[in-house]
Amino acid sequence: MKRTKIIDIFSPELIGTEVSVMGWVRTRRGNKHVQFLAINDGSTIKNLQVVIDMAKFTDDDLRGVTTGSSVHVTGRLVESMGKGQTCEVQAETLKLFGTADPETYPLQKKGHTLEFLREKAHLRPRTNTFGAILRVRSTLAFAIHKFFNDRGFVYAHPPIITCSDCEGAGEMFHLTNLNIAEPPRTQEGEVDYSQDFFGKRANLTVSGQLNAENFAMAFGDVYTFGPTFRAENSNTQRHAAEFWMIEPEMAFCDLAGDMDVAEAMIKHIIRTVVEKCPQEMAFFNSFVDKGLMERLEHVASSDFGRVSYTEAVELLKKNNDKFDYKVEWGCDRLSGTGQLHRGNQNGHFDCGASGTGNPAARFYPCQQSGCLYGDHQQQ
Amino acid sequence: MKRTKIIDIFSPELIGTEVSVMGWVRTRRGNKHVQFLAINDGSTIKNLQVVIDMAKFTDDDLRGVTTGSSVHVTGRLVESMGKGQTCEVQAETLKLFGTADPETYPLQKKGHTLEFLREKAHLRPRTNTFGAILRVRSTLAFAIHKFFNDRGFVYAHPPIITCSDCEGAGEMFHLTNLNIAEPPRTQEGEVDYSQDFFGKRANLTVSGQLNAENFAMAFGDVYTFGPTFRAENSNTQRHAAEFWMIEPEMAFCDLAGDMDVAEAMIKHIIRTVVEKCPQEMAFFNSFVDKGLMERLEHVASSDFGRVSYTEAVELLKKNNDKFDYKVEWGCDRLSGTGQLHRGNQNGHFDCGASGTGNPAARFYPCQQSGCLYGDHQQQ
Repeated sequence: MKRTKIIDIFSPELIGTEVSVMGWVRTRRGNKHVQFLAINDGSTIKNLQVVIDMAKFTDDDLRGVTTGSSVHVTGRLVESMGKGQTCEVQAETLKLFGTADPETYPLQKKGHTLEFLREKAHLRPRTNTFGAILRVRSTLAFAIHKFFNDRGFVYAHPPIITCSDCEGAGEMFHLTNLNIAEPPRTQEGEVDYSQDFFGKRANLTVSGQLNAENFAMAFGDVYTFGPTFRAENSNTQRHAAEFWMIEPEMAFCDLAGDMDVAEAMIKHIIRTVVEKCPQEMAFFNSFVDKGLMERLEHVASSDFGRVSYTEAVELLKKNNDKFDYKVEWGCDRLSGTGQLHRGNQNGHFDCGASGTGNPAARFYPCQQSGCLYGDHQQQ
Repeated sequence: MKRTKIIDIFSPELIGTEVSVMGWVRTRRGNKHVQFLAINDGSTIKNLQVVIDMAKFTDDDLRGVTTGSSVHVTGRLVESMGKGQTCEVQAETLKLFGTADPETYPLQKKGHTLEFLREKAHLRPRTNTFGAILRVRSTLAFAIHKFFNDRGFVYAHPPIITCSDCEGAGEMFHLTNLNIAEPPRTQEGEVDYSQDFFGKRANLTVSGQLNAENFAMAFGDVYTFGPTFRAENSNTQRHAAEFWMIEPEMAFCDLAGDMDVAEAMIKHIIRTVVEKCPQEMAFFNSFVDKGLMERLEHVASSDFGRVSYTEAVELLKKNNDKFDYKVEWGCDRLSGTGQLHRGNQNGHFDCGASGTGNPAARFYPCQQSGCLYGDHQQQ
């Protein structure tokens, strides 16, 4: 019998049929007459209830079926009487694939803090929160690729290892295959990088932009989407050592066209994730961020505000008494300290906004107020 | 007037309309009465011919319009009398965006060797060959994402920087932000990596498999698709220092299911690239590999052969006189030296084949005979 993924099992036409499901046991409960398993196979945040009539099974059959173990169940899918679930499987066969020692398996039924799960990186994808985050991340990644692919953008893969040093060596990770304990030396006593793997000093890229710009000068519309590295010794949310970054570059495009693409992309990925991950987004909306869905719907259905740099500075200066870093014409990161969000609370932009006009001003995403985006440079 | 990309311009309904096109000049020729530009905007390998009636333009208007320069042309799209092209633009306006000095611009009309283009990495995407390669690569990348996304695989992004050392330190790139000229030392005189960025020695990943397996134990079906690194000091086609790798991992799947997915993926990406990149594939078929299209069609429409390791060894041993590295039961890379291809010439597998049965045998892609794939390990 062909296996059915749990995400596909909650469809009315399967009711009454024999199904074959595989997954990990989230919980087991019951009594000597009937046992209930909640199993999850990672295809959805929802668990499937399996009902085990102990008249058909022995205690031996269920030995080792504990939280974290993996099982194969076949049986009839029936409508469920239990609240919060539409159907359940009445087990005919049950096979144990792998066990999880109840004494040591860390993910028992109780809730876990994010700090605890931080130390269980190999298991946390099995939790509701990380499972939802990672399925949403995957859905977002595909939505981004689809957005650019549908518009004829060429996906470029700039090299990660580079000998370019475009943003200052202090921020880059250095790569070497020399013996650091005793590196080879030149006659002058310097480290002799000519003996290193690439014959010179190499780094991890801090940006694919240089390559993407070359590609744009050949293909017109291109984008990168890959890992990027910063060796800034600063432990904040803004300074990850390794992160995935999207860098679109467009030839024959002006700033208005650039903002059109950015706005369309934000709306596209919001609509996609709401459509493709309804259970995960409902979970976040209930347990992580109560206004999430309403805010996303609003951003996806609104025209983004557009503001010149000078206008933005004027708007923000009115709130300078609330800011740690005062705003004035010339400062280059308006949202770096949250000003645009706090400025927004005066009602100027209830959705997204993007900026124009300053040669070097950067408008960064601002979670609370929707989205502000870009790294616009005047042309 | 809205710009039309050149890939969209060769459609019958645009004939007779005014169009706006932007691109780079590939060639310019003509006389004092009429000038012809071939322009390309990277959206397709095809150039668009622009006809410039010199009764409407002055020599000054065309100053700087040379190979490599970028232009904006508006005018009427008409059917073309020229052979090999369906339509052309009769220029009404011409604006020069950027110039390319004919004395120094390297990509003049003559053909260039790959060796020459190797030194012009920033410009070679503008050539027919690299343009086609990179558009096909982009199309393949999206086809791979779509294949896995459509099947509910979660796209995992394993870390590139890792402190795991799973395949032997000799093959890994080492990362450090210590001062290599004078690294900090422990009391014992060893390099003190506790003072390095991550507080210990870090490397670039040689495989996302370890993480992908954890993910598979939570999501069932997952894949990775990102850059991977090998510091093998071996300058062959098989040993790139940096390459993008796809690593699918499936829980609750057997080897037959694994081979089904691999075969379906190969066929999917072949069909996609043939459908989405017809011009590029025709170019490769004409100028790079004359049997390409026929071979791809054959692979996409055939059932792949499947062979046990023992059977493969038996088949190959018959050709041991042709092999540099003799085949015998126990050797782990059957295609590493091209044996499977040469064995295939005896007609055993005219399409793809995948292997089963040996605990550690790897079947690698073999371009000439279609495809052999996988890194199957008996379960």
